[in-house]
Amino acid sequence: MKPIKYIACFLLLLPSFSQAQQSIPVYLDNNKPMEERVEDALSRLTLEEKVALTHAQSKFCSPGVARLGIPEFWMTDGPHGIRPEVLWDEWEQAGWTNDSCVAFPALTCLAATWNPEIALLYGKSIGEEARYRNKTVLLGPGVNIYRSPLNGRNFEYMGEDPYLAGKMVVPYIQGVQQNGVAACVKHYALNNQEVNRHTTNVIVDDRALHEIYLPAFKAAVQEGKAWAIMGSYNLYKDQHGCHNQYLLNDILKGDWGFDGVVVSDWGGVHNTQEAITKGLDMEFGSWTNGLSNGASNAYDNYYLADPYLQLIREGKVGTKELDDKVRRILRLAYRTNMDRNRPYGSLCSEAHFTAARQIGEEGIVLLQNKNNVLPIDLNRAKKIAVIGENAVKMMTVGGGSSSLKVKYELSPLDGIRKRVGDKAEVVYARGYVGDPSGEYNGVKSGQDLEDNRSPEELIAEAVAVAREADYVIFIGGLNKSAHQDCEDADRKELGLSYGQDQVITALAQANKNLILVNISGNAIAMPWVKDVPAIVQAWYLGSEAGNAIASVLVGDVNPSGKLPFTFPVSLQDVGAHRLGEYPGTPRNDGSSIVDEKYNESIFVGYRWADKQKVKPLFSFGHGLSYTTFEYGKITADKKTITKNEPITFTLTVKNTGNREGAEVVQLYVSDKKSSLPRPVKELKGFQKVYLQPGEIKQISFTIGTDALSFFNDGKHEWVAEPGQFEILIGASSTDIREKVVFELK
Amino acid sequence: MKPIKYIACFLLLLPSFSQAQQSIPVYLDNNKPMEERVEDALSRLTLEEKVALTHAQSKFCSPGVARLGIPEFWMTDGPHGIRPEVLWDEWEQAGWTNDSCVAFPALTCLAATWNPEIALLYGKSIGEEARYRNKTVLLGPGVNIYRSPLNGRNFEYMGEDPYLAGKMVVPYIQGVQQNGVAACVKHYALNNQEVNRHTTNVIVDDRALHEIYLPAFKAAVQEGKAWAIMGSYNLYKDQHGCHNQYLLNDILKGDWGFDGVVVSDWGGVHNTQEAITKGLDMEFGSWTNGLSNGASNAYDNYYLADPYLQLIREGKVGTKELDDKVRRILRLAYRTNMDRNRPYGSLCSEAHFTAARQIGEEGIVLLQNKNNVLPIDLNRAKKIAVIGENAVKMMTVGGGSSSLKVKYELSPLDGIRKRVGDKAEVVYARGYVGDPSGEYNGVKSGQDLEDNRSPEELIAEAVAVAREADYVIFIGGLNKSAHQDCEDADRKELGLSYGQDQVITALAQANKNLILVNISGNAIAMPWVKDVPAIVQAWYLGSEAGNAIASVLVGDVNPSGKLPFTFPVSLQDVGAHRLGEYPGTPRNDGSSIVDEKYNESIFVGYRWADKQKVKPLFSFGHGLSYTTFEYGKITADKKTITKNEPITFTLTVKNTGNREGAEVVQLYVSDKKSSLPRPVKELKGFQKVYLQPGEIKQISFTIGTDALSFFNDGKHEWVAEPGQFEILIGASSTDIREKVVFELK
Repeated sequence: MKPIKYIACFLLLLPSFSQAQQSIPVYLDNNKPMEERVEDALSRLTLEEKVALTHAQSKFCSPGVARLGIPEFWMTDGPHGIRPEVLWDEWEQAGWTNDSCVAFPALTCLAATWNPEIALLYGKSIGEEARYRNKTVLLGPGVNIYRSPLNGRNFEYMGEDPYLAGKMVVPYIQGVQQNGVAACVKHYALNNQEVNRHTTNVIVDDRALHEIYLPAFKAAVQEGKAWAIMGSYNLYKDQHGCHNQYLLNDILKGDWGFDGVVVSDWGGVHNTQEAITKGLDMEFGSWTNGLSNGASNAYDNYYLADPYLQLIREGKVGTKELDDKVRRILRLAYRTNMDRNRPYGSLCSEAHFTAARQIGEEGIVLLQNKNNVLPIDLNRAKKIAVIGENAVKMMTVGGGSSSLKVKYELSPLDGIRKRVGDKAEVVYARGYVGDPSGEYNGVKSGQDLEDNRSPEELIAEAVAVAREADYVIFIGGLNKSAHQDCEDADRKELGLSYGQDQVITALAQANKNLILVNISGNAIAMPWVKDVPAIVQAWYLGSEAGNAIASVLVGDVNPSGKLPFTFPVSLQDVGAHRLGEYPGTPRNDGSSIVDEKYNESIFVGYRWADKQKVKPLFSFGHGLSYTTFEYGKITADKKTITKNEPITFTLTVKNTGNREGAEVVQLYVSDKKSSLPRPVKELKGFQKVYLQPGEIKQISFTIGTDALSFFNDGKHEWVAEPGQFEILIGASSTDIREKVVFELK
Repeated sequence: MKPIKYIACFLLLLPSFSQAQQSIPVYLDNNKPMEERVEDALSRLTLEEKVALTHAQSKFCSPGVARLGIPEFWMTDGPHGIRPEVLWDEWEQAGWTNDSCVAFPALTCLAATWNPEIALLYGKSIGEEARYRNKTVLLGPGVNIYRSPLNGRNFEYMGEDPYLAGKMVVPYIQGVQQNGVAACVKHYALNNQEVNRHTTNVIVDDRALHEIYLPAFKAAVQEGKAWAIMGSYNLYKDQHGCHNQYLLNDILKGDWGFDGVVVSDWGGVHNTQEAITKGLDMEFGSWTNGLSNGASNAYDNYYLADPYLQLIREGKVGTKELDDKVRRILRLAYRTNMDRNRPYGSLCSEAHFTAARQIGEEGIVLLQNKNNVLPIDLNRAKKIAVIGENAVKMMTVGGGSSSLKVKYELSPLDGIRKRVGDKAEVVYARGYVGDPSGEYNGVKSGQDLEDNRSPEELIAEAVAVAREADYVIFIGGLNKSAHQDCEDADRKELGLSYGQDQVITALAQANKNLILVNISGNAIAMPWVKDVPAIVQAWYLGSEAGNAIASVLVGDVNPSGKLPFTFPVSLQDVGAHRLGEYPGTPRNDGSSIVDEKYNESIFVGYRWADKQKVKPLFSFGHGLSYTTFEYGKITADKKTITKNEPITFTLTVKNTGNREGAEVVQLYVSDKKSSLPRPVKELKGFQKVYLQPGEIKQISFTIGTDALSFFNDGKHEWVAEPGQFEILIGASSTDIREKVVFELK
């Protein structure tokens, strides 16, 4: 008998209550610095709790420390909206009714706005949705560089230029994270195609790595202060992106000083030893689709679960790496769920739908507008024909992990009908029939309506409708099925599928007022480009697609988007394809590895077109307006600068048309002579200028030495070489309006 | 064309960001008083949003206002632990792996501690578990008065005495709510049996209503400041408890000034008009078990959903009641999810398991201990026989909505084996076989092991084992299957099932050192009481059951629990049964209503036994110790008091044994003469006193006029009539040690 049992109980009880009021442990004390709280929490954890923190416990959730009150971590796919709830250990939706969301435009559209304010609005809005849904980490945004137009996932990224992607990703991250939700920038790095995505070993020179593929990630980390980053599926230097000494330890956590968490892509972890030592912090999605039914807990088999624990217990691995991972994970907790000041978020607010529409309206690119067919004159039009499956196809469902369950998605046809009202008759014909629905990880792509008519019958109907109309709007392009714009596979060709070219050609013959609206996140081939007077690049616009498209078509909104990537005439005009290693070469050494050398090096997108002097179908930075702009003479505040000295260029832009509009003025730097090959020019500045008819604004660009630098792979550092530089001011990468030369001493 | 579209966008964008930093709307501003925030939020809501707030959107969740960032409300069954997640619209568990919890002892055990500090510890601990699991409302505690020992749900309540239940429920609520989780006190009111629970119309006089059935609820509301209360299934004055003019509007919200939410029991709402006007605020569980599969949203059919909306739209109902409901629901939000200062909670912490054990150890009641068979002397015992199914049966699963998925549940047998270690051999025999598992709302009761032997064989085995042992511990009683201690049905008899009486009688013949441990939440008949030297009432003790029981049996802990309800010899000694209306009389008017008159009126529990002068098997307040206590002489500080003047009684208690222990000193008031019939005595004070061997403590009780009052149903008010009162100080309701008389002028 223990003699003081009762006394102990009674005496212990009272102090514990008053204590709770008086002294809070450091790890729970908001008034203590984060790092102090991290260390205090760390010191309280058992080995098992630490290991548990490093891997998932369900499809999208990893544990906190329940006994200490450190909350769980709930991940959600983005980057365009908040993914619906799935079952605990299945991809299948959980059937909740509170998880419908706003679908924002795809990130290609955001990039096409060339407007960092809009990126902030985007991030803020989607971050609020994630916060309301109690998500800790938004799995986005993606900033993989657009290397090939066949990449099935380009629609989720921000185009081909590292500077543009960097400038747009930073405010997106800030907007998300001001909600106490972490942005998880993905897929770090070199995940530039979907075919063989788990087995491709990218061989890229250091210049291309640092000048093309990493800068947007670096900006995300250093300027955006992203709290999380996602490793990529592919390999680099024979190591998978999710456990990669070079990319994660040396560059991200070493050179860039990243103090957040590296999250694996779902199923991107392959090896316990590498996962321990090569920079991964949190393992998700390794396998177990329903395997835990019956089994005790399939997540214990994760690479960073029991196998990790066993290595430590056997003394084969120390706990230094584990403590580093846990510190990062604890930081994530303090930045998100344990930030008492974070707002409550909101879901499906009017402001979010307005934001979605505004992003779409600013991102739509007017590629071509012969004879000013656009905007549609509703005072003249009696009948408007809308043709094409994408006028009615749901695009927020499908495409892979970015698939959503939306509160609503207004189709282009419905948006046009709503806007036109009774001012004109709107007649629809399908024109062609796309693929049956695909499925990826339990997510179906937008359901297709049945139509058993032959292509000839469909075209005949479309032509008949088109002949009778004052305007014909063809709405086609790609969709969210496999081998279109969809995760896990690449496109098979640059051209459109489903015989759309035939439909378009027939429509062009039937009616000269043909407007083509291309819905895609990728460049497409346009063999009929000369026959179609008006071409609009309208992306995947999400919930407000129909409203945004209708606004531009009828001229409520004056288009101001600019292409964030080049539209090549053919694949032969793309470095990755011209130099022949896409989609890589199997090693044939018994491994499943596919080597892929980026022979084009730094010459990606317009850098390739410039170097090869090939004329794109539509250039990077291209985008028309319903008004016209005149660029004034450029002046520099200096003729010569020394290293680290800024230089400022000034010019005016005038709206010379008769309606207000916005122009994206682009600044490119051209190094006249360098010790290593450099691109003809590189984007180093841009400004979106809003102008009333006749209005003139003066704008200035200030650049520093960094804008003149290239990555010297011999010295392994960024170098700005003395000599002449030319500043090119353009309305696109091929529409240069002004130039000025200066010298770096 | 709208001429200032772009300008507007651009100008609006910047202010909206800075504005967000600067001025927070009142409803989101922590620095504003709650009622101001409520009014501001209310003013922003649409009619549809208001109506949506008043009913569920899934089995356990009701919506917030997503667009405004007002969080959802997540309810969880308690009151003994946090229920595992279920599917969105099914009772079936969702298969999560993060929702295992600590099972705390059932509330009967908590009441048996007679220790409000322990109730605070209980509430704090379970509240922390609810908070960690992100629950808004804990559906508990329950304080329905123990009227009949057949009530299948007595185990969830706090016994037969309104004063004891009131004193114990208040700190429980405070403990829960200090976590920013609402306690939802249930089932208000008069839900005193499970048979016909949806159709029983209780007919009770106003005295019994106010003196017996309401005081614990009143204390919960006025002293505990409960933020939520749950309406009951049964009817009162022909209105269901969930929409009852008398109970909800007149008494709860009127007389008591309750400003929180009335939540329906699941399926307790029956009528839109009544739900609107008769005090309900939030409707849950009306039906739809999986019905929403395929249907657009079955919850729209709830009584307070579309039918309510339609009545308002048609002008048949105003919005006054709606605004009142919404104000209450908004208050709930501010008190819980929108309280920025609430702690993070914790789950399955060592402290919680320790609390569970401590509650159990303090609640176990030593009913009988002839020849000091207990505590077991491990220095003497070579072999200990443990007999009975409840020694191994899982009791945290089953019983209805209180069923849990626990991190662990240590069985009595395992607890004894663990404690005894190698000091003695512990041999087990099952003795009898209980029911196959029952199921209620998708929740199975504890699984039974197969055993196809005949009762005779089982008894023979048990007796053989018992003969060889130094001690025999029979662990039986009730369980969590239907018609035992389980929701939705009542017990069929006071006696034990499964032939346990035969087993016990045989064991008593086989071994004189027989210890009987009764696991139940209800009184049982004990025809063998004279033959069994030691009897322990051990309740449902949850995760730490085995440890708590073993501690008491071997004397690590000196038992200090006291019965919170009377053990009658037979049902004929219970007012509800003696006066014959249990379980009620069908009306036979075509309705399904069953009228049940509480003919015994205020004479419930010991009040009945006192009045009828029947000797209970074990009395209310009874509980032995391994030590003995001597009560000193009582003194009063006055001989006479006037109305509203307090009076204080003082006495000493001495531990006259040789081990430390605790005594619950009970104060009963006896009104020597009154204009209306009164109970012989009523509990109006108690103190648990911890004493070392030989230690003497002086204790005082101060009571006010309220302790002398009864509810005068003629005047409809509480009245203390001048005259003589006697104070009885006892170790139980039938073991009165001291008396003193005073007069109210």
